[in-house]
Amino acid sequence: MSEHWFKAHIRDMDRQESLEHLKGYTVGRIIFDDDRGPTALPVNYVVVGEDVLIATSPYGSIAHWTPGRQVAFEIDDFDAANETGWSVVVRGEAEVPAYADLPDDNEHRPYPWAEGDRRFHVRVRTTDLTGRRLVPA
Amino acid sequence: MSEHWFKAHIRDMDRQESLEHLKGYTVGRIIFDDDRGPTALPVNYVVVGEDVLIATSPYGSIAHWTPGRQVAFEIDDFDAANETGWSVVVRGEAEVPAYADLPDDNEHRPYPWAEGDRRFHVRVRTTDLTGRRLVPA
Repeated sequence: MSEHWFKAHIRDMDRQESLEHLKGYTVGRIIFDDDRGPTALPVNYVVVGEDVLIATSPYGSIAHWTPGRQVAFEIDDFDAANETGWSVVVRGEAEVPAYADLPDDNEHRPYPWAEGDRRFHVRVRTTDLTGRRLVPA
Repeated sequence: MSEHWFKAHIRDMDRQESLEHLKGYTVGRIIFDDDRGPTALPVNYVVVGEDVLIATSPYGSIAHWTPGRQVAFEIDDFDAANETGWSVVVRGEAEVPAYADLPDDNEHRPYPWAEGDRRFHVRVRTTDLTGRRLVPA
């Protein structure tokens, strides 16, 4: 791999810029603790207000380990050629929303790519919403 | 967003296939617990044996929170048009390797894109190495 003469600078995004990035994507990673420590699973998501809403299997590890607990949600994108990129991290408690609180129309609900029963919704109640950018020197 | 008629199947990767993917990338996410729960930060990495080696700031949160603790490391890639992708998750304890145990030549050491003092190395001692693929229906 070729080394760049000048390394990229790290710049913080403010909450609004972080939220814009969050709204612009549909795949991220839910970060949670199970009985063996922290782990991550990629999932499709939508943004509701400033919260992250995902749809998962009622029998899977996300449904088992996240409700009522502190979690994170991360998205990012990178440009290997230019050695730049950005990431956004949401932190907050995961909750299981009441059916009545889900978005009314399918279009605003999470749309999982993966097969299977994904009727179990988890909403990350955003407290922290931060982002960082690697900008070229 | 257009909905596909048939959703993708989830297939497990075996350890060897997961390792091949891990060796093929240079950016992933270190997943760890700090004093506010689980979180994730993107980092550049190299693979040493089956372990993940990163270089970070001695003053940052990775250096503060990971040594001696259980962590995870995640990589993935997605194809939004085809609604497919894959992910690999490493789990294990993070340790600070002795200088003598670092790869001899720079080429095999982590090459951080970001500016700053990144002389603090963290090695994730891989115990679990698993992967999943979303394959078209």
